[in-house]
Amino acid sequence: MLAEIISVGTELLLGHTINKDAAIIAMELSRLGIDLLNCQVVGDNRCRLMDALKLALSRSDVVITTGGLGPTKDDMTKEAVAELAGLPLIYDAESLEALKEYFGSRAMSENQKKQALVPKGAIVFKNMAGTAPGCAVPFPNGKYVVLFPGPPRELTPMLECEARPFFLGLGKEAIVSVMVKTFGIGEGAAAERLAPFFSMDNPTVAPYAGQGEMFLRVTAKAESEDDARRIAMPVAEKISTILGDVVYGLDVSSLEEAVVRQLAKRGWSISTAESCTGGLLAKRITDQPGASAVFKTGLIVYANEAKERLLDIPSELLSSFGAVSSQVAKKMAENARIVNQTDIGLGITGIAGPTGGSEEKPLGLVYIAMSAPDAEWLRVMKPCGRYLGRNNVRWMAASHALDMVRRYLAGLPPESCQI
Amino acid sequence: MLAEIISVGTELLLGHTINKDAAIIAMELSRLGIDLLNCQVVGDNRCRLMDALKLALSRSDVVITTGGLGPTKDDMTKEAVAELAGLPLIYDAESLEALKEYFGSRAMSENQKKQALVPKGAIVFKNMAGTAPGCAVPFPNGKYVVLFPGPPRELTPMLECEARPFFLGLGKEAIVSVMVKTFGIGEGAAAERLAPFFSMDNPTVAPYAGQGEMFLRVTAKAESEDDARRIAMPVAEKISTILGDVVYGLDVSSLEEAVVRQLAKRGWSISTAESCTGGLLAKRITDQPGASAVFKTGLIVYANEAKERLLDIPSELLSSFGAVSSQVAKKMAENARIVNQTDIGLGITGIAGPTGGSEEKPLGLVYIAMSAPDAEWLRVMKPCGRYLGRNNVRWMAASHALDMVRRYLAGLPPESCQI
Repeated sequence: MLAEIISVGTELLLGHTINKDAAIIAMELSRLGIDLLNCQVVGDNRCRLMDALKLALSRSDVVITTGGLGPTKDDMTKEAVAELAGLPLIYDAESLEALKEYFGSRAMSENQKKQALVPKGAIVFKNMAGTAPGCAVPFPNGKYVVLFPGPPRELTPMLECEARPFFLGLGKEAIVSVMVKTFGIGEGAAAERLAPFFSMDNPTVAPYAGQGEMFLRVTAKAESEDDARRIAMPVAEKISTILGDVVYGLDVSSLEEAVVRQLAKRGWSISTAESCTGGLLAKRITDQPGASAVFKTGLIVYANEAKERLLDIPSELLSSFGAVSSQVAKKMAENARIVNQTDIGLGITGIAGPTGGSEEKPLGLVYIAMSAPDAEWLRVMKPCGRYLGRNNVRWMAASHALDMVRRYLAGLPPESCQI
Repeated sequence: MLAEIISVGTELLLGHTINKDAAIIAMELSRLGIDLLNCQVVGDNRCRLMDALKLALSRSDVVITTGGLGPTKDDMTKEAVAELAGLPLIYDAESLEALKEYFGSRAMSENQKKQALVPKGAIVFKNMAGTAPGCAVPFPNGKYVVLFPGPPRELTPMLECEARPFFLGLGKEAIVSVMVKTFGIGEGAAAERLAPFFSMDNPTVAPYAGQGEMFLRVTAKAESEDDARRIAMPVAEKISTILGDVVYGLDVSSLEEAVVRQLAKRGWSISTAESCTGGLLAKRITDQPGASAVFKTGLIVYANEAKERLLDIPSELLSSFGAVSSQVAKKMAENARIVNQTDIGLGITGIAGPTGGSEEKPLGLVYIAMSAPDAEWLRVMKPCGRYLGRNNVRWMAASHALDMVRRYLAGLPPESCQI
């Protein structure tokens, strides 16, 4: 069972939209055990969309399109697929009813109404978060073209609630991937240590670079999801053992998830004092559902005045060493912990750029400190000749803060000796 | 001059990585006036990569690949392209030198060394942020296959600094897009009012849905970038006039950029008091370079204790109305402004979920308040039967806060009458 995705939208070819849809569908297909071997992107152009559909149907069993189901003139996916299938478009009663309900007393134009059209004989998927339904259109030889709306917010619930039963009827093998997530080791270094794993067949192992992180994907195939997991897991664990304490988790989505989980398990609390990261660290912690059990307070002290007033940072410390200094970072972490009465305090101060650097304190220099009842840790991010840009500097600084907490809670030394 | 992108990497087909590279390259091509009509994605599989390359070379003049240049066994793009071009791989002296420097005293394996290999006769692009160089490989009929590394952090500087001169030699027409950005109007409503624009040829106009926003892309082609802009701009302005005050800017990347710009222009300052958004609002403000001119302090008051201590929210207010209430949101905004001595204060309190909702205060209920010297505004996000998920609720709440500031600074009423 081979699947293929065709993403439709000129915005994708102009780079105005990042193709999140393809990733969302790819992940779902992998969960369902349906192999995805090709993806295509075409603009809102009927002729090229037709070509893409024909190519896809020639080599794949299920062709999944996203985009082009809306009310505007640019939206033509449904029309193209119906033509290719030789099926007329008819109004789907339930979708039309939902549209009418959506518009209520407001007038509904013909353009809006055409969203309820589907190729005759298609299986219709309700749109719980928008107006255009999706559908699965049958083609000869048991093939299907499946149409989804473009906005990820509409696609995701349709995929998970409406389309899953349909796909479940198609898939045969289950694919399970286990992720070995690391922080503090480069792709090259990890790859060399793990070389023998990369020639395995089932599971396959592949290294990837994330934002300031690297991770290994261990992917197994089997008849059931459980069996696939039984094949993947021991290999993922072996890899973890080889890589050691740079591994922050298996199948953990992020450092912040690992940290919030560990804090919650201990019943510990954490607070943050951020300068250059401006709330990003707190945002990442509170991205986690249930973060309120461990996170109570965060202080964003961009200005020196705020550092003094909210965190009791002595003005002499600021004037002698400067706001961007190890001394101030440590004091921020310590006082965040004390002022907010939490078990752990984090402090970050640095120069995220793109301006404000000097020879002594260059762009990208960041001090990150952690204060715990029995420990005071510090890390320094030094730019080493290349400035990674504001977003990367901020992201990496927050990651280092989280990694320090993770290591501290796990009883590990402040830095890995693996780096 | 037609371009095509082939993104190489099994991680893309498993949905573990979102294809940011394609968007980065697409945007650059559009700036350079090179038409991009097709994109493909294939896994780390030599046979399918070859097929994709052949198809792309049959219909496009410049084929751009990303990924597969690294040191691991999975990396095979260079080998496939060299084979297809009938060119041997040779060591590029400069790249080898850079690799040696990178490894310093550490041993460099054969795998690492092979990153410095390029097809003979290729134009080499230095990698300023990693180890594998890119290159442009000549093919018959003046065609090229251009190879870039996968990590966006490596791709971006290579594209902008190293590859631009090469592409500039290829492009003929300039394409300019002007974005009309809006907050507070749906895609359908905007599309109906703008229907005549969608059948224009040059510029073309298309509506898009962003995260809780919608925007219109006005794209013009001409011989020079200036000429293209002169065609696009009047149409973008006409659209702005029709849509009215839901438009927050032309070619502004985000609401936060619009707000930080306007605040800076006035010399005004802002502070934030966040509960359920947990730092996201401050993070979005400080994402903007130069935010320190207007943003001094942000308070993340997840716990009631923090609301009382840091913001002087009376405990009676919390106990009578609950932390999630219009009264508390208003007091948060007002006291953020007073305590931090800024011109504007923002307060957000709500239930981001996925747990913690009740019949009276359902998941997705958020109160957003703005306090200014002469104004106190409030918005309420009500879930209306469907809960959008933690991330969307948080994002929308922060967007509403920013939109209130934008409207206040522009002298507009609190809500648009266009909604």
